[in-house]
Order: sequence, then C-alpha cells, then structure tokens
Amino acid sequence: MTSTIRDANGAVQWHEEVDVLVLGLGAAGAAAALEASALGAETLVLERASGGGGTSAMSGGVIYLGGGTALQKACGFEDSEEDMYRYLMASTGLAPDQTKISLYCEGSVDHYDWLCAQGVPFKQTFYHGTSGEPPTDDGLVWSGAENAHPFKDIARPAPRGHVPQVEHQGGPLLMQKLCAAVEASPARIATDHRCTALYQDHQGRIHGVAAESFGEERRIRARQGVVITTGGFVLNDDMLLKHAPLALRCGMRVAATGDDGSGIRLGIAAGGATIHMDSVSVSLPITQPWGLKRGILVNQQGQRFVNEDTYYGRLGEAALLHNDGRSYMVVDHGIFEKPEYMEEIAGVGETPEELERALALPEGSLRATLELYNHHAAQGSDPVFHKTAEYLEPLDRPPYGAFDCTTDKALYAVFTLGGLHTDSDGRVLDPEGDPIPGLYAAGRSTSGIAVGGYSSGLSLGDGTFFGRRAARAATRA
Amino acid sequence: MTSTIRDANGAVQWHEEVDVLVLGLGAAGAAAALEASALGAETLVLERASGGGGTSAMSGGVIYLGGGTALQKACGFEDSEEDMYRYLMASTGLAPDQTKISLYCEGSVDHYDWLCAQGVPFKQTFYHGTSGEPPTDDGLVWSGAENAHPFKDIARPAPRGHVPQVEHQGGPLLMQKLCAAVEASPARIATDHRCTALYQDHQGRIHGVAAESFGEERRIRARQGVVITTGGFVLNDDMLLKHAPLALRCGMRVAATGDDGSGIRLGIAAGGATIHMDSVSVSLPITQPWGLKRGILVNQQGQRFVNEDTYYGRLGEAALLHNDGRSYMVVDHGIFEKPEYMEEIAGVGETPEELERALALPEGSLRATLELYNHHAAQGSDPVFHKTAEYLEPLDRPPYGAFDCTTDKALYAVFTLGGLHTDSDGRVLDPEGDPIPGLYAAGRSTSGIAVGGYSSGLSLGDGTFFGRRAARAATRA
Repeated sequence: MTSTIRDANGAVQWHEEVDVLVLGLGAAGAAAALEASALGAETLVLERASGGGGTSAMSGGVIYLGGGTALQKACGFEDSEEDMYRYLMASTGLAPDQTKISLYCEGSVDHYDWLCAQGVPFKQTFYHGTSGEPPTDDGLVWSGAENAHPFKDIARPAPRGHVPQVEHQGGPLLMQKLCAAVEASPARIATDHRCTALYQDHQGRIHGVAAESFGEERRIRARQGVVITTGGFVLNDDMLLKHAPLALRCGMRVAATGDDGSGIRLGIAAGGATIHMDSVSVSLPITQPWGLKRGILVNQQGQRFVNEDTYYGRLGEAALLHNDGRSYMVVDHGIFEKPEYMEEIAGVGETPEELERALALPEGSLRATLELYNHHAAQGSDPVFHKTAEYLEPLDRPPYGAFDCTTDKALYAVFTLGGLHTDSDGRVLDPEGDPIPGLYAAGRSTSGIAVGGYSSGLSLGDGTFFGRRAARAATRA
Repeated sequence: MTSTIRDANGAVQWHEEVDVLVLGLGAAGAAAALEASALGAETLVLERASGGGGTSAMSGGVIYLGGGTALQKACGFEDSEEDMYRYLMASTGLAPDQTKISLYCEGSVDHYDWLCAQGVPFKQTFYHGTSGEPPTDDGLVWSGAENAHPFKDIARPAPRGHVPQVEHQGGPLLMQKLCAAVEASPARIATDHRCTALYQDHQGRIHGVAAESFGEERRIRARQGVVITTGGFVLNDDMLLKHAPLALRCGMRVAATGDDGSGIRLGIAAGGATIHMDSVSVSLPITQPWGLKRGILVNQQGQRFVNEDTYYGRLGEAALLHNDGRSYMVVDHGIFEKPEYMEEIAGVGETPEELERALALPEGSLRATLELYNHHAAQGSDPVFHKTAEYLEPLDRPPYGAFDCTTDKALYAVFTLGGLHTDSDGRVLDPEGDPIPGLYAAGRSTSGIAVGGYSSGLSLGDGTFFGRRAARAATRA
C-alpha cells in the first residue's frame, strides 16, 4: 500500500460510521450530500477548510443548463435537449463523453428545478452583453460560444448560463444557499477535517477514510461509499508540471486553497485511472465589452489565430495552448474602448507599420494581416476565421493600438479539467474500466463534460449533476 | 484489488522464482535483462510475442547519444555533455526531466560503448542528408533539430543519431544483436508469455506476476523486482481517446502489436502514477529530400506556422497538435522535387491565386503569405519563423504546387511518450512520489526524456539507458 492507502482487512478502530461519506463541501459535495440524505442515507461531509464553499464559492456562479429550463422560457428563449447536446458534443473538446453529455442534457431542465428547490434564487431576466459573469443580478446569460463559428451553424444558439440572483459574482450566493440546504438537511458537516488516507480491503473495496482535524486522527467508516469532491489540481505546481505545464504561466488560478489534487491522488493510490489530465480551462477576457470583438488578436508572428467573437474561454485556449501565450489585441481609433479587465497597452502607432515596430513583430507581418482582414471586413466577410458580420469592420482609422495579451501581462484565468475517470454514475474506474467498489467522485476531481473547449458553468453544472448521481449510485450499492 | 492485481499475502503457488523479472523484450527489456544478469541476478524475460524485438525492431534503429562518443569522434564531430544537455533541456518539451536528462548526458559516451560491447555494429562514417533513417549503412546521422532555430543558438549542434550498420531500417539489426546478447547471457527468455496480473502485498510491494502462455497460467515470483518494459499505448484506441485523441488521426502508428498500454495499466492498477499522458511523437517526413525545406508549410488559413527546416518530428507536432493536422507544403517550379515519402499533390496553379483556389484556402491568404515570405527570403532572412538562410529562396517561379499534408493524405507517424512516472532509477512512483516497492519500468511504458519535442533515437536511447538503471536498482534492492 502507498502511504495514503491503509489496509481495511485488519481490525480498524472506527471513530464513527455513516452510510455515505462526502469529501469536500464545494458545489459537487453539497449536491452529493443533499441527494444522499434525501434518499435516507446517513451522510457526513468532511471539509478541510473551516467552512463550506470551496472553489465554487470563488466562481462566477454560472451554471450551464438548457434544453428549455423554466428560466430560459421565462426569458423568451427556445432551447431543446437536442440543440444543447449538439453544441456540447461539438464544443467540449476532441473526446467528449457522449454518455455523460447525453444524460446531462436529458436531466438539465429537472436539475434547474432541483437547484431552485434547494433555495438558489434565479431572477427571471436575461442579461444581454458580457458572457460569463454579468454585472447585474439577471439570471440568464450567454456563457459559451453558441453564437460563434462554427457552433452557430451546428446547433440553434441559446443562452444557457444560469446565474444566482446577485450583482457581480454569483458563486458566494450559490454556495451560501447550497450549504444552508445541507445544514437544513439530515446530512452532517465536519469542517476542519482533511482526509489523509483511504481504507481499502484486499478485494479493492473502499471502506472509509482517515481524516486529520486539529492534529487528531479520526477514522470514519462509510458503509455505502466515499464520494470524492475535493476539486482539481490547479494549485499543485508539481502536478501541473507533469500534466499541464502551460497552466503554470497563467497569472490567475481559479481555485480555493484545497485545489491541490489531493482527492485525485487518493483515487490514483487506490488504483483509479485518470484521464484528460492535460486539459485546462483558460479564459482570456479581453473582449469585454463586446465591442472589442471587432479587434483582431494576433500572435508573435503577427498572424490572427481565432475568430475573436468566440467565447473568451476559447480565446484563452487558442492563445495559451497553441500560440505560446503571446498575443496582442489590435484595435484602431474607431473601435477603441477600455477593456473591462485591466490590460496593458503594448504599443501604439499612426500606421500599421509603426504599431508593428512598437510590438516588435516581424517586419511586414501585421501590415499583411491587417490588409487581408480589412479587405474582407469591408465586404462583411471573414473567410479566414469566420467572425460574425456583426463584429466585422475594417481597422483603418489611426491611431492603432494593441492590448498586451501575453501571459505575463494579461489576465489568463486557469483551472484544471482532467481528473479521475468516472462512469456516469460517479464510480471511480480502474485502468481496465472496472469500478473500484465503494469509491465515487464528482466535480473537478474528475474528468467531466468539458475536456477542452470550455463554456462557463459546465463545472458547477456537471459537478452538481453528477455529484447527485454519485450519491444515488452509492445509496443503491 | 482490481482484476489485474492479486493478493500476495496469501499462499501463492509459484511455478517459478527468479531475482529479476522483465516484462517485454524490446530494447528496454533487453537492456534491463543484460544488466541484471551481468550483475549476477537470476533473470527471466517474459515476452508476449513469439520472439523478441517489439516496437524497437520496427523502428529506424537510431539511438540518440552524444557528448563525444567514439563514433562522433571518428566522424570528426566535436560534442560535449553540456551541449547535449542544453539541447535536450531546450528541445524536449515544456517540462523536461532535468535529473534524467542530466544522467543521460553524463552516461551517454559509456552507454555507446556498452551497446558496442553487446555486439551492435556501428559503421564509423557520417551520413550527410536525411535525418532519422539513413538509406545507407552509415553510423552517424542528424536526427533532431540541432541545426535549426532556436536550438542552433542554444547549443553547439552535433549529429547524435547513432545507427546500427545496415542499409535503411536499423531497428531489426539492433534487436537481432540485443536479443542474441540476451540469449548468450545467463538471462532466460520465455516467449509467448503475456503478463496478466501483478501480485502485490498489503504494504504495496510487488512480488511477482501471473502470466498466460497458450491458455495456461504461470505464476512467477520475482525476489528483487519486476521491470515493466512493455511499450507505449499507441495501439489502444480507448487510451488514445482518453489521453491523446489527436493521435487517432495519424495514418501510421509506430508500434508492434504489444503497444496496447498493458504494462502502463498494470502499473496504474498497482497504484502507480502516470505523467505526460497527452504527449506523442508525431513525424511528418515531408522535407525529405532536404531541398524541400525550401518550401513553405501552410495551414488551412494559408499561414505558415513553423520553420520548415526543423526536424520532421517537430513539423508533425506543429501540424497535428497546433494546426488541426491540416496543412500543405507549397513549392514552386524552382524547388520542386519528388518527396521520398509518397505525398499527394493537393493542387497546382500558374499563380499563387490559382493555387490558393485549388487548395480552397481563404481568398488572398496564400498570396499574402507568399509575398511576405518572398520579400524576406530575397534578402536571405525569415524574421517570422527563422528558417536558416541555406533554405531561403523566393518561391516565385511558376507553376506553383502543394503537397497534401493533411492527416488523411500524408504520412503522419505517431507513438506515445507518456506513461508511468518513474524516478531516474526506474522505480515506479505513486502519486505522492514514493516508490512502489519491487516495481520498475523503462522505455515507452514510462514517461522518459522526451515529453514533446522529439528527436529520433531518444526512445531507444532512454529505454536502453534507464532499462539498465532499473535493473541495477532492482538488484540493489
């Protein structure tokens, strides 16, 4: 056994026994605890911090749901399970999990109602503008690339970002409500409890955990299952280096202090497999306000590399993962406005050539890019990257300027998407695809719906949805 | 325990006991067996095929060595451990393993001598031309990007591809000699033996294996250690989908039938960690003969994306991993010649515009790229991608043509670089970085020296080098 696995065959002196033990009180953990206790399972949540919330409480609170939720209908948007499915299958990376996505789309309308029933408030109004985190208390928002190439032609676009009713950041309110629901439920919460080891028997089954609380060890048996919902590993530099080294260059890690991969490592030590460990969500919110989508994003070779009107989560991926995290957002006097997120001005010039020199781009490169872009934009087309006509206009009104979108200057917000391999019931799978009995996981401890190609709200969405499913599977086991 | 892990605490009826058990008889397994038996350990190699060789026997046989080997000296090349170290640290990906690379460079001269002592012949002549696999029986060849930007300015270039003396493909001869050496050694070989499970005790120590041979199970105890050298996972579609999905688009998988990740999965089941599972080597040998380096490689946007004179292993990575595996090698009448590896002609035209239309590239895109390239090439410079002056000349002599370098038309040769996390003594590590007692691994079952940014010969090189180190560590244990 490795240091984090203990022999469960011997006589373990348990301090406590429950049916379902949940590790971590973020959104996924809260959902798992609520579901398990609603099904009558004696449920305990261990949280290493002094209070619940985790990374979910530090997020924008957006939950990606659709297929015609009550909120979408109230705001006058038509959506269907099929359109949501097509969008997610096309947009979430090269290897989307069809089974999880299918279940998620089928269950999305009900899952919204469930969130409402837990006390999470959603104002029945739509915010047109900034994706991701609306500054108002509106409930519905665009939070993906539904309206951009190529997705707008693959599925009928609909806004699917469901945001708790509060101005600006919705994550704290979401977690305040979910934690209150857990406290009001029969489930118990033990804060300041950090799980340090799993108890596993010789047949591989997980029986419980050892946890540390203020220097004391507590051994807790879980009769039906342990559910790992401890978050990702974006705060673990060593793990990032071994799986997703480019993430180390991002200035902002979307994380609570617990995102050190501890739960993932417990699962690996128990013989669990991980998948898509290189996948990260990288946001580069440079096109806020949306008018800046009329600019062009160029790399160190002075070339465009993405349709600038796509979701800022995709801009970050394109810039960091495929263009070395070095790029500039070029604007002219006609479209210049101040970005919502502070960005440094990297250079200005009266001509494209002057700006090119100011940015130390290869001679002639930016000029050639602008000429080609302007030529097509004047005709309302972008055959190179297919930006929507709405954001196409020639950049030919001096002076020219560029915002610095290199990783050391701009806001790159990153978190990890890879993790334990789970089936759609949250069972942690071994490398042969067989479940490790008694071990479940959900949220960013697992590889979920998005494995590259992020839309905001997918992590709170799949964490809560599959957290509930894991709890149901554990109580059935 | 998962299905591939069995309880070693009970009374196991072993059919046989040895000191060191090696799984797989490719280059890494042969090296491990030779080293273990030379140190006096009773050694047995299990090979699932009916004969030794594995993927190594299907390779070009190039072994990346340097720092002033006898062969480099005989061919009149100066090299140093430091230059080799600088090149490898700069070229092998974003997260090079400094400890392994350092040991590898220190031991490289001796390791060459060791290979010679095993009977591997190297003709003391240099082949100037094609990287990778020389068509002649010359012994030394360029097999990386040492001479190209940016590496030529980071470390003094030297050819480091050491090739067994045979025309064309050197892998079969290499493995014929290494297998003969194993057969001449006290180590024994059992072919047609496929390892199906590891025996692990409650402290995590590996004690032996179960193997299947013609339907019969044989249980073999390993007193000192089991060394996994079973190769990568490029033939396992399911694993590729979960770790490196783009590899599925490559037409050629560099593999023997055993490269299904079985050894990696055994290690995971035993609680071992994997790292860099997304890393692949992708070769696109379009610049053979070298005259074609004077062409330009463009993506679907008609943009260049790499210095075309870099090693073809890097061309493949740039094209597949960052440009969707869709690109064209554009040439003019002046530099046209037939590629060594058959490539389809994707289009021709009397003007850049005609070629652009033939390739269905965005209007004006290829013309703009050629104008910028030609403008600089006429002055012998390439400020955009820094191709060496030797390969720079304007492409302005009609007709123009393009070889199809999309994954469905061109030769993309792929194999996996990620695998079990090992220390520099080949110990398989758990997620906390602690060794799993009794378990070792080498070769492409592990993550080795190259984790992105491949030079030919690194896998045979690190497989044999760290295979020997694993055997030494096991016999010391």
